[in-house]
Amino acid sequence: MSSKGLISSCSLTPELLEQAYGLGARQCPSPNEQLTLVFSQSRALDLVELEQLLEAVGWSRRPLRRVRRALDHSLLKVSLWRHDSRMPRLVGFARCTGDGIIDATVWDVAIHPLYQGAGLGKHLMDYILEALRDLGTERVTLFADPGVISFYERQGWLLEPGGHRCAFWYTS
Amino acid sequence: MSSKGLISSCSLTPELLEQAYGLGARQCPSPNEQLTLVFSQSRALDLVELEQLLEAVGWSRRPLRRVRRALDHSLLKVSLWRHDSRMPRLVGFARCTGDGIIDATVWDVAIHPLYQGAGLGKHLMDYILEALRDLGTERVTLFADPGVISFYERQGWLLEPGGHRCAFWYTS
Repeated sequence: MSSKGLISSCSLTPELLEQAYGLGARQCPSPNEQLTLVFSQSRALDLVELEQLLEAVGWSRRPLRRVRRALDHSLLKVSLWRHDSRMPRLVGFARCTGDGIIDATVWDVAIHPLYQGAGLGKHLMDYILEALRDLGTERVTLFADPGVISFYERQGWLLEPGGHRCAFWYTS
Repeated sequence: MSSKGLISSCSLTPELLEQAYGLGARQCPSPNEQLTLVFSQSRALDLVELEQLLEAVGWSRRPLRRVRRALDHSLLKVSLWRHDSRMPRLVGFARCTGDGIIDATVWDVAIHPLYQGAGLGKHLMDYILEALRDLGTERVTLFADPGVISFYERQGWLLEPGGHRCAFWYTS
C-alpha cells in the first residue's frame, strides 16, 4: 500500500474502461492494491443494488418504478464501481438534476459504509464537478445533511451564500 | 374593485385561453377590474422581455444564448401575462428544474415591481405547486433570498427541514 494511501493498483486500459463502464469512465484513486475503482456515467444500474446502497447509508427505500423514472430524467448519474471483470460491485453513487447550463443540483450522494474514510466521497464530488464544468454549468447546488455539512465546507462549497436558505415543500 | 381585492374582471373563454396561452393556461385572480392576468406554461417568451423582468426585480443580466438553453432544459416554465388581445405583457415568471418525480427545484421567481403587493407571488407559487403535483413530484425545493424567506415561510414551506443547509459551488 502506498504511504499516501491513494494509488491505482491495477491500471485498466482505456478500451476496457470504455467497454465495461461506458464513455467518460475513469479510474478512481484507490486506497489499497486489492481494490480497483471506476467512475461511470452510463453503466446500467441494478435498481435493487442502488437502493441497497442508499439504504446502507441510512436513507429509506423508494418505489423502484419512481426511482427509474427519476433516473431517466436526471441530468447526470455517476456510479462508482469496485472493478471485477465478471461482476463489478456498486460502491458509490450520486446524481444531478438541473438545466446543466445555469444550474445543477446534486442528490443522493452515497459511498457504501465499507468504503468510507478513504477519500472516495471527495473523489466522487470532484468527478461530478468536472463533468458539470464540461457541460458548461455555472452553479452547482446541494442540500447537505447536518452530518456532512463540514465535509462539503472543507471542499470549498459555500454554505448559504448571501444568506440564502433552503425551503422544502412536500406535495403529499 | 372588489372589497377583497381579488376578482377576475374579464373572464376569458377556455378556447381563447388555450389559443393565446397554450395548454394548461389559467386565469390568475386579479387585483382590479382593468387587469386580466393569465398563467401560461407554453406561450413563447421573448428573452429580452424576460431578462428585463428579472432585472427589474434586481437580478443581473445573463447571456441570452445561455438563458435559452437553460429554459430548453427546464422541467417547467410558468409565465404570468397581463392579458391584451394584441400584445400580452409579461409580468411574472418562474421555472423549475428536476426529475419531476422525486424532486423539483424552483428558480427565477419574479413578479414585476409594478404588480407586486397584490398576492400574485402567492398565486404563482400555488400554480407551480399544483403543476408539479400533477406531474407526480414528491418534493419541491428552492433557495430563498433573505428578503423573501418569510414570504415562503408564510405559505407553509419548511425552512431547512432536518437541519439541511444549502451549499453552492461556482464553477468559474
